[in-house]
Amino acid sequence: MQRRFVTTRRDKTGLPPGTPIHVGSRPTDPVRFTVFQYGPDSCTEHSPPDAAACTAIERNAPITWINVDGVYDVTAVTQICSALGVHPLVQEDIVNTDQRPKAEDYGSYLYVVLRMLRSLPNGDPAGTPAIVAEQVSLIVMEGLVVSFQEHEGDVFEAVRERLRSGKGSVRRKGPDYLAYCLMDAIVDHYFILLEHIEGRIEPLEEAVVSDPNSDAPRAIQALKRDLLVLRRTLWPLREMIYRLSREGAGAITDDTRVFMRDLYDHVIHVIDLIETFQELAAGTMDIYLSSISNRMNNIMKVLTIISTIFIPLTFIAGIYGMNFSNMPELEWRWAYPVTLAGMAAIALVMLRFFRKKGWI
Amino acid sequence: MQRRFVTTRRDKTGLPPGTPIHVGSRPTDPVRFTVFQYGPDSCTEHSPPDAAACTAIERNAPITWINVDGVYDVTAVTQICSALGVHPLVQEDIVNTDQRPKAEDYGSYLYVVLRMLRSLPNGDPAGTPAIVAEQVSLIVMEGLVVSFQEHEGDVFEAVRERLRSGKGSVRRKGPDYLAYCLMDAIVDHYFILLEHIEGRIEPLEEAVVSDPNSDAPRAIQALKRDLLVLRRTLWPLREMIYRLSREGAGAITDDTRVFMRDLYDHVIHVIDLIETFQELAAGTMDIYLSSISNRMNNIMKVLTIISTIFIPLTFIAGIYGMNFSNMPELEWRWAYPVTLAGMAAIALVMLRFFRKKGWI
Amino acid sequence: MQRRFVTTRRDKTGLPPGTPIHVGSRPTDPVRFTVFQYGPDSCTEHSPPDAAACTAIERNAPITWINVDGVYDVTAVTQICSALGVHPLVQEDIVNTDQRPKAEDYGSYLYVVLRMLRSLPNGDPAGTPAIVAEQVSLIVMEGLVVSFQEHEGDVFEAVRERLRSGKGSVRRKGPDYLAYCLMDAIVDHYFILLEHIEGRIEPLEEAVVSDPNSDAPRAIQALKRDLLVLRRTLWPLREMIYRLSREGAGAITDDTRVFMRDLYDHVIHVIDLIETFQELAAGTMDIYLSSISNRMNNIMKVLTIISTIFIPLTFIAGIYGMNFSNMPELEWRWAYPVTLAGMAAIALVMLRFFRKKGWI
Amino acid sequence: MQRRFVTTRRDKTGLPPGTPIHVGSRPTDPVRFTVFQYGPDSCTEHSPPDAAACTAIERNAPITWINVDGVYDVTAVTQICSALGVHPLVQEDIVNTDQRPKAEDYGSYLYVVLRMLRSLPNGDPAGTPAIVAEQVSLIVMEGLVVSFQEHEGDVFEAVRERLRSGKGSVRRKGPDYLAYCLMDAIVDHYFILLEHIEGRIEPLEEAVVSDPNSDAPRAIQALKRDLLVLRRTLWPLREMIYRLSREGAGAITDDTRVFMRDLYDHVIHVIDLIETFQELAAGTMDIYLSSISNRMNNIMKVLTIISTIFIPLTFIAGIYGMNFSNMPELEWRWAYPVTLAGMAAIALVMLRFFRKKGWI
Amino acid sequence: MQRRFVTTRRDKTGLPPGTPIHVGSRPTDPVRFTVFQYGPDSCTEHSPPDAAACTAIERNAPITWINVDGVYDVTAVTQICSALGVHPLVQEDIVNTDQRPKAEDYGSYLYVVLRMLRSLPNGDPAGTPAIVAEQVSLIVMEGLVVSFQEHEGDVFEAVRERLRSGKGSVRRKGPDYLAYCLMDAIVDHYFILLEHIEGRIEPLEEAVVSDPNSDAPRAIQALKRDLLVLRRTLWPLREMIYRLSREGAGAITDDTRVFMRDLYDHVIHVIDLIETFQELAAGTMDIYLSSISNRMNNIMKVLTIISTIFIPLTFIAGIYGMNFSNMPELEWRWAYPVTLAGMAAIALVMLRFFRKKGWI
Repeated sequence: MQRRFVTTRRDKTGLPPGTPIHVGSRPTDPVRFTVFQYGPDSCTEHSPPDAAACTAIERNAPITWINVDGVYDVTAVTQICSALGVHPLVQEDIVNTDQRPKAEDYGSYLYVVLRMLRSLPNGDPAGTPAIVAEQVSLIVMEGLVVSFQEHEGDVFEAVRERLRSGKGSVRRKGPDYLAYCLMDAIVDHYFILLEHIEGRIEPLEEAVVSDPNSDAPRAIQALKRDLLVLRRTLWPLREMIYRLSREGAGAITDDTRVFMRDLYDHVIHVIDLIETFQELAAGTMDIYLSSISNRMNNIMKVLTIISTIFIPLTFIAGIYGMNFSNMPELEWRWAYPVTLAGMAAIALVMLRFFRKKGWI
Repeated sequence: MQRRFVTTRRDKTGLPPGTPIHVGSRPTDPVRFTVFQYGPDSCTEHSPPDAAACTAIERNAPITWINVDGVYDVTAVTQICSALGVHPLVQEDIVNTDQRPKAEDYGSYLYVVLRMLRSLPNGDPAGTPAIVAEQVSLIVMEGLVVSFQEHEGDVFEAVRERLRSGKGSVRRKGPDYLAYCLMDAIVDHYFILLEHIEGRIEPLEEAVVSDPNSDAPRAIQALKRDLLVLRRTLWPLREMIYRLSREGAGAITDDTRVFMRDLYDHVIHVIDLIETFQELAAGTMDIYLSSISNRMNNIMKVLTIISTIFIPLTFIAGIYGMNFSNMPELEWRWAYPVTLAGMAAIALVMLRFFRKKGWI
Repeated sequence: MQRRFVTTRRDKTGLPPGTPIHVGSRPTDPVRFTVFQYGPDSCTEHSPPDAAACTAIERNAPITWINVDGVYDVTAVTQICSALGVHPLVQEDIVNTDQRPKAEDYGSYLYVVLRMLRSLPNGDPAGTPAIVAEQVSLIVMEGLVVSFQEHEGDVFEAVRERLRSGKGSVRRKGPDYLAYCLMDAIVDHYFILLEHIEGRIEPLEEAVVSDPNSDAPRAIQALKRDLLVLRRTLWPLREMIYRLSREGAGAITDDTRVFMRDLYDHVIHVIDLIETFQELAAGTMDIYLSSISNRMNNIMKVLTIISTIFIPLTFIAGIYGMNFSNMPELEWRWAYPVTLAGMAAIALVMLRFFRKKGWI
Repeated sequence: MQRRFVTTRRDKTGLPPGTPIHVGSRPTDPVRFTVFQYGPDSCTEHSPPDAAACTAIERNAPITWINVDGVYDVTAVTQICSALGVHPLVQEDIVNTDQRPKAEDYGSYLYVVLRMLRSLPNGDPAGTPAIVAEQVSLIVMEGLVVSFQEHEGDVFEAVRERLRSGKGSVRRKGPDYLAYCLMDAIVDHYFILLEHIEGRIEPLEEAVVSDPNSDAPRAIQALKRDLLVLRRTLWPLREMIYRLSREGAGAITDDTRVFMRDLYDHVIHVIDLIETFQELAAGTMDIYLSSISNRMNNIMKVLTIISTIFIPLTFIAGIYGMNFSNMPELEWRWAYPVTLAGMAAIALVMLRFFRKKGWI
Repeated sequence: MQRRFVTTRRDKTGLPPGTPIHVGSRPTDPVRFTVFQYGPDSCTEHSPPDAAACTAIERNAPITWINVDGVYDVTAVTQICSALGVHPLVQEDIVNTDQRPKAEDYGSYLYVVLRMLRSLPNGDPAGTPAIVAEQVSLIVMEGLVVSFQEHEGDVFEAVRERLRSGKGSVRRKGPDYLAYCLMDAIVDHYFILLEHIEGRIEPLEEAVVSDPNSDAPRAIQALKRDLLVLRRTLWPLREMIYRLSREGAGAITDDTRVFMRDLYDHVIHVIDLIETFQELAAGTMDIYLSSISNRMNNIMKVLTIISTIFIPLTFIAGIYGMNFSNMPELEWRWAYPVTLAGMAAIALVMLRFFRKKGWI
C-alpha cells in the first residue's frame, strides 16, 4: 500500500499545545537507550535499562551521547527531556514524527530535527529496495548530545566505530561536532537513495520507447511521488543547515561551522540531483506520450495500406460478380486475365504512392 | 452548485470606505453571544442576550473572551467594536466575510482575521464530507479577546473544555495565548481536511488507469479547484503567522511567540502537503491522458487486425465470385479446397506479422 | 475586432522626451471640465467651459477637485498642468494613455496613474458585457486634486454623491483622502469585472464536457487574454499601492495611509482571484483536450465494433458466393441455415468479447 | 538561414583578456566617423576621415558627440579609446559584439552597451520586415559622448535633427542627456518591432483554427524564438536602466535621472508586452493542437458513419449472393423489394443513432 | 553508456569528514606535476617527478604555478596541501570530484573549484564531439597558484603560451590574475560546447518536421539532459564569480576584480544561451508532437477517402450480385452501363465533398 502523506491526527487535534502525543506508527518493542561517554583519551559505552537510569548517569567524561531508539514511548522521552530542562513544545516535536527539518536555538541548547532515510537490505522483490523514513531529533547542549530515533536501526554505525576506535577527530572535538557527524551520516545516505532512484529512471527510459503499453506512466508517477517526498524533506534541511553554517547558534562553535558549510554543499548537491531527476522523469513522460502516438501512427498505417489496396480491388471484383444479363465483357476471352492484370496495376500504383509518402 | 469565487459586491460598491456592510450569506438565525471570564483559579461562562449586555459586562476576572456567532448582524458587531474603540475599517473587515488572512497591529489592540474550514459530519452521499469555510476575526487587547464567527458551530470546543477544566496552561496565560489557542485549533483542523483530500486522490489514481472513460477529468478539476482555494487561504496565513512569530506585535508576548513559531511550522507543513497534492493531481491528469491514448491504441489494434486479415481474404472470395465465362480454375477439381487453404495461409502469415509487431 | 496590445507609436517615436503627444484613440467630443469645491460644511460644483477657466478658478473652499474628461485635447492638459507647475514628463504620461499604473512623488505634488476598467451596460449580444479600459491620472497637491480621464463616463458617481450629500467622512478629510476614494472606486469595480469573468468560466466548463466540438478553445484563449490584460494592469498597481500604504509620500497623510492599506488588501484579493481564474482556465483547456480524446475513443469504438462483427461475416458470405463448380456444401440441404447460424454465433462471440473489454 | 545564437569564438578563445578582437560579421565598408559639436546656441557637424582626425578634434563647443559606424575596424576603436583613457576590457567589449546590455561606471566615464533592433524597410517578401540587431556602445564623459555602432544606419536620425534645429532641450543639457536621448531612441524602436510581432500573432491565431495543417507550428516556434531573443535583450537592459535611474552614476546628473526613470517605465512596458506575447504564442500552440484533434475527430466521424451504414448492408447483399442451392427466399416473389426496404430501414436506424450522438 | 549523475559513494559513506578519498574514475597513469616560475622578466618551466619534489621547490621567482594532473593520487594531493597548510576539508573536496563550483576564502588562501568541460577531437562517429567533464581546483595564495586536475589534457595551453612568450600582461600581474586567466580559459571553452549543442538543435528541428517517426524524442531528451548538466554546473559558477567580483576575497586584488566582472558577464551569457536552448528544445518537442498528429491526420484522410468512395460502390455491386430470381432490372438492356454511370456519379459527389472539406 502507498504510504499516505497525511498522518492521522484525529487523536491529537484539540489537545493543549505542548502535550507530547506520539503521532506515527506505534511498535511494541521496548525502547532502547545507548550511552557513549568519551573524551580525547577514552570512550565507554553502555545501555541503561530505562529513562531514569539514563538521566541518573554520572557525567564522568567530557562528552556524553545518549541515543534513544523509540520515541513512541512518550513517558521516557518526557522524563529525559524534563530532566534536561527542554521546552514542552520541543518534547511535543520529538514524539510527533511528522516534523519538517528545522533547527531551533533555545539559548542553553540547540534542537535539531531531520529525517533519516534508509534503504533496507531486504527490499521488495521488484528490485527496488524498501525505503524507511525516520525522524531523528538531536538536542545539543554543554557536554551532551541526546538523539531520538523512531525505531532501532540507523546509519550511525560508522560514527560509533570512530568513537570507539578514536579514528578521525571526533573524540577531540565538542558535542556540536558529534551532532555534525550524525547529520553528515544522514545526508551521506541520501546519495545512496539517489543512486537507487537513478537506477529506476534508466529502465523506464528504455521501456517507454521499446514497450509503450507497459505500466510506465504509473511507474513514472511513483517516481515523481518519491522525488516529491525527497524534495519536501530536503528543502527545509537546506535552509536549516545554511543557517547553522552562517549565523551559527550558541551551541555551534566556529570550528564546526566550517564543517556545516561542507554539509551544506552536500545538501545542495542532493537537491540539484533531485531536481535533475524530476526533469528527467517529466521528460520520460513526454517520450512515453510520443511513443504511444508513434505506435498509433504505425497501426493506422498498416490498416490504411491494406484497406486502400484491397477495397478498390474488391469493388472491381464486385462489379464482375453482378448478375446483369447484358454484361458483354463477361464473355470476352481475355476479360478475366485482363481484369486480374488491371487489379495488379492498381495495387502497384498504390504501393508506389505509399512508398512516396514514406509509409512503407 | 459550485461555490463561486467572487462574492457579489454590487450592494457594496460605491459606499464610503469604513461602512460596515455584511458581504456574504445572510442567515436569519439570531446572533449568539458567549462570554468566558477566567483566571488561573476560576472560569465562569454565560451568554448575554444582546450586544449591549456584552459590552456592559463587568470584567471581574483577569481575562474575558467574548465570542460572537453571526457577523451578519452588522449592528451588533458595530456596537461591540465601537465600545472597544476599534477602527471603522476593522469593523468593515469583520462583517465583510471575504477577507484574506491578515494580522494588523493597531497599537492598543491586534486584529487577526483567518478562515476556519470545517467538515460537516453529514456530508454529501458521494462520501466527500461537505466543507464549510467561515471567516473568524479576533481582536486581542489588554485582558480581552473578542472573536467573531459567521455562524454557530466551530472547532473551538476543545479550547473551551480546557478553559472549563483548567487543563493545560491556558488559564494561567494571557489573552494572546488564548488567541494562539484558537488559531492553533483552526490550523489543526486543516490536517483533517487534507486527509479527506488525500482520500479523494487515491481512488482517482485507480480510476484513471482502470476506467479512463470515467468522469476523472472533472473530478481532478474539482480537486484542483479545492486545492487552489486552500492554497489561496494558506499563503497569506503563513505570512501573517510568520510576522506574529518573528516581529511580534504589541499584544503578543515573547512567551507566546514561541508557540506562534510552532504554529508557523504547522502552517508550512499544510502548505507543503497542498503543493504535493497539487503535483499529484497534475500527474493524475497526465496518467489519465496516457490511459486514453493507450485505450485508443488497443481499439485500433483490434480493428486493424480484423480488417487486415479479412479484407484480403474477402477480395479473393470476390475474385472467384466474378461471372466471367472464361475462368478455367473454377472448373478445376481441387480449386475450392486449394483456395481455402491459400486463405488460411494468408491469415496465418498476417497473424505472425502481428505477433512480431507485438500487437497480439 | 480584438483590441491590440501595442498602441501605434509611430507618430511619437523620434520626438523629444517630454513632448506631450496623445497616444490612443482620438474622439472628437469636446473636453469636459468639472470642478468640485468643498469643505466640511459646503460643496459647490460647476463646469468651466475651457482650460483657462479651470486654472482661473478662485480657490474659495478648503479643497478643490478638478476633473478633466478627454486627455486627447493636449493643449488643455498642458495648460492646466503648466499652471500647476507639473513636470513635462508627467504631462507626457497623462496624454500618452498606455502607461503602467504608477505613483511618483514630485515633492510638492504626487502623480498617480492607474487604469479604470468599466463594463458598459449595453454589452455585446452574447451576454459578455463590453469592457472599456481607460487611463486615469491623478495629481494630488496642497488643497487640490486634478483627475484626467480619457473619455466621459466613469465609476466616480458614488464619490460625487458623497461629496454633495456630505455622507461619509470625505468632506472632512484632505485631498489625499479624496484621491484614495477615487482609487478605491476604481478597484471596487474590478470585482464586478471578475464576476463577469467568473460567469464566463462556468458555461465553458460545461461546454468542454458536453459539446467538445464547440468553440471552447477560442473562448478559453479569449478568457486567458483578458486575464492576462487584467493581471498586467494589477501587478504594478499592487506595487504602487503597497508603496503608498507603507512608505507613503509627502502628499499622503498617515491617516489616509491606513485606508491605503485596506485598498492594498483589495488589490491583493483581485490578483488572487485573477490567478485562480487563470489556473481554472488552464484546467478547462485540459478537460477540453481529454474530452476530444474521449469522444474520439467513442467514435472509434463504434467503427471497430461494426467492422469487427461484419467484416468476417461478409467474408463467409463471399466464400459461398464463389462460383467454383466443385463446392459440395452448396448442395447440402441444411447448408444455408447452418451457415446463418454460424454467422450469428460468430457475431455473439464478438459481442461478448466487446462486453468483456467494456466497450459496450 | 536562421540566425545562430552562439557567435563563433574559436579565434578568440585563448587570447589574453583585454585583447580587442572583433567578434561578429566583418563587412568591408570603410569605417565612418561623424562629429557633432554643440551648445545651447550652436551646432556644427563634420565627418573626419579617420580615427586620428577624430581624436585630434579641438573641443571648441560645450559638448562633443563622436559617432563611429563600424566597430569591425579594431584599430580605429582602439586608437580613439586609448586617446580617451578607456580601460582595455571596455575596448574588448566594444568590438566584441555579443555583449549583454550593461552599464559600468569607471569613475571618470560611464560605459553603456545596449542592442539596437531595427526593422529594414525592404523586408522579406512574406511581409515580415527583416530585423537587424546591432550592438551600440556609449562612452559618456565630461563634455563628450562617443557612440560605437556595428554598421551604418541607425535610429538616431530624430536626435540629430533635434541637435541641428535646437528643438527640445537637448542642446541646453549635458552629455548624459544626449546619452539618454540615444537610449530612448533605441527603446522607442522596440515598440515598432513589437507591433510587427503582434502583426504576426493575429494571422497565426486565425490559421490554427481555419487551416490546422498549415505551417503554424514552425511559425509559432519562430515567433517564440524571436520573443526569446527579445526578452534576453530586454531583461538586462531593464536592470541596467533601473540602476542608472536610482543609484545613478557619476556621469548621470539628478536631472537626467528623472528621464531615466521614464525610460525605465518604457522598458518595463516592452517586457510586459513580450511576456504577454509569449503567453499568447503558447496559447496559440494549444489551440493548434486542439484543432488538429478536432479535425481528426471529424475525419473519423465521416469514416465511421459511411462504414457503419454500408458494411452491414453489404453483408446482407453478400448473404443473398451466396450460391446455396437450397435458399427458398430467393424464389419468393417480393423477396428483392423487401430486402431493399429492410436495408433502407437499417440505414435509417443508423442515421438516427448518429443524429442522437450528435455526429451529424 | 549514459553518464550517471550520482557517482557511487558507497566507499566514502561513513568515513570521518575531512578524509580525502578519491571519488571518481581511477586511471592508472602516474600523476604529472608541472611547475611554472615567472615574473615580469623571466619564466622557467619544469616537471618535478613527485609531490615531494614539488613542495621542495625553491621559490626563486615572484610567482609559482604548480599544476597537478591526477587527483586520484590522494597521497600526492595530501602531501602538497599539507605542506601549504590547506584545511583537510579542502583536501577532501579536491580529490572528491563531484563538487559544485564554489569559492571559499580561508584567509591566507583562496580555494576555488569549478568544472572544465572539453570536447575531444576524436568524438563519436555521429558527429557529436565527445564531452569530457573534469573538476579543476585552484588554490591561490601569496606568490603561488596550485591547480589540480583529474587527468592530463586541459584548456590552459593558451595561458601557458602567454606565460612563456610574455605576451599580454599575465607575467606582470599577481597570482590572482593567473587564477583569473585559468578560469577565463575554462569559461571561454563553454562557448565552444554551446556551439556544438546549437549544431545539434538545428537538424533536430528539421527532423521533427520532415520525418517525425525518427528518433527525435530520444535525441531531444539527450539534449535536455546535457543542457540540464550544463545549467547545473553554471548556476553555482555564476554565484561564485559574482561574489569574487563584488565582495572579493583576501587573495583577489581590486585590479583583478575588474576582470572577474568581465568573466561574470561571460558566465551570464553562457547561462542565457543554455536557457534559450532549453526553451528551444522544449519547443522542438512540441513541434514533434504536432507533426505526429498531423501525419496521423493525413493517414486517416487517405483511409477515409478511399473507404468512403468504395464502400458504397461495393454495396451497389453487392446488390446486383444477389441471386433473387425476381430482380427485373437485371434483364434491362441498359442496366449495366446505367449502374456504372451511377457509381461514377456517386464517386464524383464524394470527391467534391472531400474537396469542399479541404481534404484533397
